[in-house]
Formats: sequence, C-alpha cells, structure tokens
Amino acid sequence: MAEDITKSPLYKIANPQSIVVFGASSDPTSMGSIQLNALMDLGFKGKIYPVHPRDKIIMGLKAYASVQDLPEVPDLALIVVPTKIVGEILRYCGEKGIRHAIVVSGGFKELGEEGARLEEELKEIAKVYGIRFLGPNCIGVANPYARLNTTIFKYTAPPGYIGMASQSGSFVTQMFDYIKLFNMGFSTAFSVGNEADLDLVDCLQYFALCPHTKVITLYIEGIRRGRQFVEIAREVSLSKPIVAYYAGGTNTGKRAGLGHTGAVAGPEKLYEGAFKQAGIIKANNVQELFLIAWAFQNLPLPKGNRVVVLTHSGGPGAAAADACGRAGLEMPELNKELVEKLKNYLPSTANLKNPVDATFSKNMIVYYTELPQIILDHSTTDVLFYYSFMPQERVKAILKEMNIKEEQMEEMAKEILKEQTELIRSIMLKTQKPIMCFNFRDPRDPYVAALIERNIPVFSDPHLGAKAIKALLDYWVWRNNRKKGDGYEK
Amino acid sequence: MAEDITKSPLYKIANPQSIVVFGASSDPTSMGSIQLNALMDLGFKGKIYPVHPRDKIIMGLKAYASVQDLPEVPDLALIVVPTKIVGEILRYCGEKGIRHAIVVSGGFKELGEEGARLEEELKEIAKVYGIRFLGPNCIGVANPYARLNTTIFKYTAPPGYIGMASQSGSFVTQMFDYIKLFNMGFSTAFSVGNEADLDLVDCLQYFALCPHTKVITLYIEGIRRGRQFVEIAREVSLSKPIVAYYAGGTNTGKRAGLGHTGAVAGPEKLYEGAFKQAGIIKANNVQELFLIAWAFQNLPLPKGNRVVVLTHSGGPGAAAADACGRAGLEMPELNKELVEKLKNYLPSTANLKNPVDATFSKNMIVYYTELPQIILDHSTTDVLFYYSFMPQERVKAILKEMNIKEEQMEEMAKEILKEQTELIRSIMLKTQKPIMCFNFRDPRDPYVAALIERNIPVFSDPHLGAKAIKALLDYWVWRNNRKKGDGYEK
Repeated sequence: MAEDITKSPLYKIANPQSIVVFGASSDPTSMGSIQLNALMDLGFKGKIYPVHPRDKIIMGLKAYASVQDLPEVPDLALIVVPTKIVGEILRYCGEKGIRHAIVVSGGFKELGEEGARLEEELKEIAKVYGIRFLGPNCIGVANPYARLNTTIFKYTAPPGYIGMASQSGSFVTQMFDYIKLFNMGFSTAFSVGNEADLDLVDCLQYFALCPHTKVITLYIEGIRRGRQFVEIAREVSLSKPIVAYYAGGTNTGKRAGLGHTGAVAGPEKLYEGAFKQAGIIKANNVQELFLIAWAFQNLPLPKGNRVVVLTHSGGPGAAAADACGRAGLEMPELNKELVEKLKNYLPSTANLKNPVDATFSKNMIVYYTELPQIILDHSTTDVLFYYSFMPQERVKAILKEMNIKEEQMEEMAKEILKEQTELIRSIMLKTQKPIMCFNFRDPRDPYVAALIERNIPVFSDPHLGAKAIKALLDYWVWRNNRKKGDGYEK
Repeated sequence: MAEDITKSPLYKIANPQSIVVFGASSDPTSMGSIQLNALMDLGFKGKIYPVHPRDKIIMGLKAYASVQDLPEVPDLALIVVPTKIVGEILRYCGEKGIRHAIVVSGGFKELGEEGARLEEELKEIAKVYGIRFLGPNCIGVANPYARLNTTIFKYTAPPGYIGMASQSGSFVTQMFDYIKLFNMGFSTAFSVGNEADLDLVDCLQYFALCPHTKVITLYIEGIRRGRQFVEIAREVSLSKPIVAYYAGGTNTGKRAGLGHTGAVAGPEKLYEGAFKQAGIIKANNVQELFLIAWAFQNLPLPKGNRVVVLTHSGGPGAAAADACGRAGLEMPELNKELVEKLKNYLPSTANLKNPVDATFSKNMIVYYTELPQIILDHSTTDVLFYYSFMPQERVKAILKEMNIKEEQMEEMAKEILKEQTELIRSIMLKTQKPIMCFNFRDPRDPYVAALIERNIPVFSDPHLGAKAIKALLDYWVWRNNRKKGDGYEK
C-alpha cells in the first residue's frame, strides 16, 4: 500500500487543480450541465474548461471547441457524453496528456454484451495513454475539502469525516441531505460505477491515507477483486473502521444489482465470511450503514460488553433491554457499590436493577448530570445506553416555578440545553466510554437537535442503538485480537 | 363481546362527562398537577373537580376538601396520590357512587410482595363497590375526540385512527410527538399499568367497537389472560388489524419488564405462536410498531405478493430488491405486455426488468404520473414499491427552463407537489393497490412533507417499507383464510 496519498491513482481525481468537462452545454437540463452547475455551486477553486463543439460560453465560462485547444493539461477530465463517443473523447484526452478521468456516461457493461465490448475498448485506450479513471456509469466524486463535487446534486452537508465508496451514484449524491440530518459530512465520496479501472479496493487504499476520513462506508452490489479486497480491507481496518452494506445477497437483490453496474453478486454467506475476515462491519441496509458510521465517528469504542441502561420510564427501558438481548449485548446486574452510589440521587420509587429506572422525579437535573456520570465512572460499566429525553415543557415548568420571567425563559432553556449536552459529551470524553443516546422524538426537538449539533448521536429507536453498540464492540474485539496476533476470525 | 361500546367498562374511562382529580395541588411540579394541566390544555369539556385537603383553588378550579363534598357523582376518578392512601381514596370514591377510576399511583405489584398485597387490597375495595379501574402504575388515557388527556404530556397530535393499549405509559405519552411526524393521531390510547382490573383484553374489545379506530397497536411486556387474549384478538383481527410489539422475549427484556409492571413475560416463541393464531402482526420494535400501523391506516391491503419496484437510480432499486428478498416478498420478472406499455415513456437507457429503472430523464414528470399508473393498472402487479424522490432543485431548474419567473416559482413548485402527490393518492384509491413510497430524505423535504400530509406513507429506508408490505400481506392472507374458514394457522 502506498504511504503517500498523492501517489494514489485517485488523488488527482479527488483533488484536481483543473478539470475539463465534456457534455455541459448551453442546455441547463442536460446531465453534463447539471454536473457543471453542482461543481460551480460548491465553489471549486481550480480551473474549469468546458469543451463543446458549438457553444462558446457555458454558464459564464469560456468553452473550447476541442481539448487540444486548452491552454494547459488539466488534471482531470469529466466525461458526460453519449456512449458511442466516450472512447474517442478519452483518446483525445490521452493525446493532450491528461492522465485522470471520470466517465459518467452509461451504456457499457451494465447493458450487456455490446456494452461490455465498448467497456473493454475504453480500458484499452486508457492503458495506451496511462489514464486512470473512475466509471463508466458513475457520478464521480464529492470532496468538500477541495470544494469538488462532480455529481448532479448540490453538496449541502458540511465537510466531514465519512469516506464513501459506492457502486451506486445515488448513495453518494442522494445522501448529501441525509447525512446532514446527523450533522455528518463526507470526507470524500466516490461513485465507482462499473469499475472498469479504479474500484473499491483503490478507494479503500485512498481512504486509509486520507487525513479527513475517520470511518469508511461501502455500498456494494458485487466485489470484483475479491482476494485483494479482503487483504487490503484487513489492513485498512486496523486503523479505520469499515462499514459495508451489501445489497446483492438475496436473489432479488442480486438480480437488481446485475442490471445496475454489471458486478457479480455472490451469496450472502460468502460476503459475510469475507467481511468478518477483513474486520468489516456489516450493515443490513442503508440506514444502518450511516447510523453505524455515525456511532463510529463520534463515540469512543466500548472496551467490553457490559451495558447499563438508564431511563426515567419503564417502557423505553424494557425496549432497550429487549434490543440489547436481540443484539447480543450483556446487561449484567448492577454492581452493589454502584447501587449505593446511585441511591443518594434517586427517589424511593426508582428501580435499581439494570435498566436503572429513575422514574418520575421533581429534581430532573440529576438525571442529566450525576446519574450518567456515576454509572460511567464505575469500573463495571462499559457502555451507557441512555434514554435521553428532556421534555421542554417540563424544563419551562421548572423555570416558571423558579420565578424566571417569561422573556428570559427561552434563553435560559437554551442555556440549559447547551450545558447539559456539553456535560454529556465531556463525561464521555473523560471516561472514554460510549454513551449511546436514544429517544422517540422529532429530530427537530430542541434537546435532540442540541445533542446532534454537539456530535452526540441520538438514535430514534433503541434497536438501532443496540446494533450500533454491537458494531463498535465487534470492531474493537476484532482489532484487538488482530493486534495481539491471535486471529479473531479463527 | 359487547355490541355497544357504551357497555364497555372502558367507555366511561375514555369518555367521561366529569372527573374528580386526587393529587393535583397548588404545586405545579407535582405529578397530579402536571396531569391536570395536560387535561385542561386539551380543553376537556366536562366538569373537573380537584380534591385537596387544604388548597381551595387549583389552576383556577374550585377544589373540594373531600369527594363527599362534590355536587355530583363524577363519571371518573383520577387518582395520583401516595401509595398508602390509594385504597382509602378508592373507598371514598366507591361510597360516593363513583364506578370508574384511573389509578396512576405506583408502588404496587411492580415493587414486590408488599406492593402485591396492597394491589390485592385495591382489587377488593373495587369489587365491593363495583368500580372498574385502569392501573395502578399507569398514566391513564388520551382520547382526543373527547378532548381527554389524563397523562403528563400535552396531546399534540391530531385526533386520529390509531388505538393504543400499552403496558408502558411512555408509549402513550411520549408518542404524541412521534406519531405526529407521520401525520397520525390516536383514536384513543390506554396506559394499562399493572392491569389489576382492566387489561389489554378489555382494550381490544373497546377498540373493536370504537368508530375512530382503524388500527390497533399494543405494547406488551407480558400477557395476563393468555387464552382470552388470543380468543378476543382472533375475533377483533377479523375487522381491524392488530400490531403488537412484545418487549419481554429476550432474557434481558424479560428482566426489564418484570421490574416495570410485574407482568409475566414468556419466551418469544410462545408469543409468536399466539400472535400468529390471533392474526396479530408482530413488530420487532417501537419504530416498526408505528410504521406498520401507518401503512395499515393509509394503504389498501395487497391482494398478492407480486411487488414491482420503480426507481430512477440503480442503488435505491437494488436496496429495495434486497429488502424485498429479506422480507420474503416476490419481485417477478416484468410481464411482456407491461414492458411494452412502459417502453413508450422511457429513454433507451432505462432498465425494464424489475426494478424498473427509469434512469435519468429530462422529462421527469412521466416518473410521477404515467409510470406508477401503468404499473399499478396492470393485472400482474400487486404492490408498487416506489422510490419517490422529487428533488426540488430539479423542479425549479425545469421551471426556469420553461421561462417561469423567479417570483412565481415557489408557488408553482408547491402546486406541482400538490398535483403530483394527489395523483399518487388517487391512483392508489382507484386501483385499490398499495403504493409503498421510500426515499432517504429529510422529513422536512417539501415533497416528503407533501406526501405525508396527504396520508401517503414515505419510509426512510426500503427495508422498513418491505417489512410493512409484508405485514399488510400477512394480515390479508390470514384474514382471507379465516373468512374462508380453512384455518391459516394450521
């Protein structure tokens, strides 16, 4: 594996200084134009050269009749033209000296034999000129740090820490809004399309070296270089967690995937085995893929499987316990010393088993301060699974009781949210143990929004939280065993 | 089973004309006061009589020193007092002639032997006076049609069609905001607590007769009257779907439930069998409970398991196919006649297998009109599984292309949303086949919001949508077989 990210064949694709665009035109509804628009919208700082046989100005940029006319050799070619002329364009690029391309155009291997032949031709041309390329049948790259977005949607999330390599362009572009819901952003996201040249393995190697990437996510319909994939992923997993959703496992999934990028899907079990060997965390759907990544990005890894559930009402506690049971997590009986410590802060109606049920209490502040602190501080707790729910009506009722004036209330309620959520974060950082929050609130709820803003994940159902805890734990165990050298996968 | 809802022992509890409240006081942070506040907030139209030994006025209402002083016999007593005086209060109520009560106070069976003894005492007193009661250790009832809400939170959802009977008060009160996210509301929700008298079975019988209830949801930690439960549910299921989440199935779940309402949890398999026999749809978590109810409330039942997936990008289609495979749904090859009909509306790059992948098209309107119409109209389609995603940037780009002025754009975009979403609803109603929408959008996305507003469920991941389709299908099969009388459960 390369030690220097600039040596990665994907480096210039994700970090170009200049781009030539084929397929944008004065028609703003064409796909090439939409992509150029997204690129300009993010404020790409390098040079952009549209090439078009007739149009002279495209979206305010000077357009060139041919790639030969360009005043320099661009780092990257973005090709969004009819299938039959893609080869020709790529050849012109090669002659100009361009060595990196993104082929957006479809109509290749994914459409059958004739398409497969055209794809082989493309590979030949690339080989002749030493061009490394992404695609065909892809949507390109989003790297918000380089203000690069070649896709068809505006990049709306903040620059972030999630690396994404996807065999579906949708799970790059159509996730921009989605990941923003979790206050997440991509470090860089690659749509790899048919992977005629660069593939998931290259992406893994890139992300291993990418300084912004904390967690790697993969959307897989079928893996092409199986052995290399497992070998490289096994290495990369040692430093960064990889979470993957494989959609080709069922027969219906397989058929759908085949129609899409022409990858070869295998039985679920095969992929499961490969993932396990490589330390890859398996997600069962898109939602899990990003929720687990959210947990990896923001929570310390648990160092054991002893979960303590903290709740102030029975139902959510029982649901969390049920979720832990299903996910294979342990909820041991509460340590006696811990019980004694908690007793000082709880009403007599509280239940001091696991879940710890604080029940209804007039002094609700203790639920957000002393209780999580005491539970996580104790050596017998590995994870706090926390029903984090702070009804704003109650906060305001208490402020009213304290004779706070109506006009100061909003601000004070905000201040309380800030203090409480920052405290939770600081407890987690100090103890280096994860706090997994869950509730059943609208994401617009002020308390939920305040937690998310401070990068404390809040799961909308405990079964999702339990799965994420299990994912973190599995990764910790795998990595530990790998480091010890005794082979977790045996 | 009673034929007349007014004969149900729960009728006066859910539809009282007058209520006496024990436990509200001049201290607004006490639980009783919070409940009285929620009751008044929803605008209860009947009489409310607070009883308090010292306070003369509570929240602007005249308070009485004793229940004997009340000018009438109230329909319902709401009791939120310390455990040790609950029996005494209930006795006074009985002497006054009150025949219905909600005992909110905890400290009974859920706390062990001494509590169990107190609970038996309570039952004895109730028996003497012929009082039917909910609880103890419950949060009471929300019936928005009667503007009744005895719980600790304000009822914020619209009056709706979901009946809820819950062994956890949280899954009544803390769901008010949650179900609103789906434009749903409760018809009536009962928190049954320890079920010393009235229980889940009584609730089922009530909902069967309740004119507002379309779907019944249950949160179960353990069933007390097993045989009656199955018998009654089996009858009720014939007319209304029942969806249940049982949280006591795992060992951890069981332990948590035991600590909560003292119900007896059994192994998951036992409950699964009972549910199947009774036609109850099993949810695996709270999220599924309400999402499946959402589907039941708004979609026609599928009359077969042939699902056609419609998408405009490969990834979401493959993920939907994977979800169908995992849920046990069929995605047959597309019928030839159907393919011919669709061809007229699709670009050459489109994939006419199942999923139908419309790919990128300049004329995006066809995706929201002709395609769903044609697919659902065809006799070989039972369900349309629809990647319903309408990026507003694209809509606006197209309007711009049509020379629509900036100032008219917002309104026109809104008009398009209205038209398109109403069309989807009308196709579904005309064909009486379900359209299951999914996408990965922020619920605040204008298109998603417009769909939800028109009671078209939109699922945030296809695996959730597939599970809901399967639930509807299972129910249809069960009910059909029951009606035919050949015993589906054999």
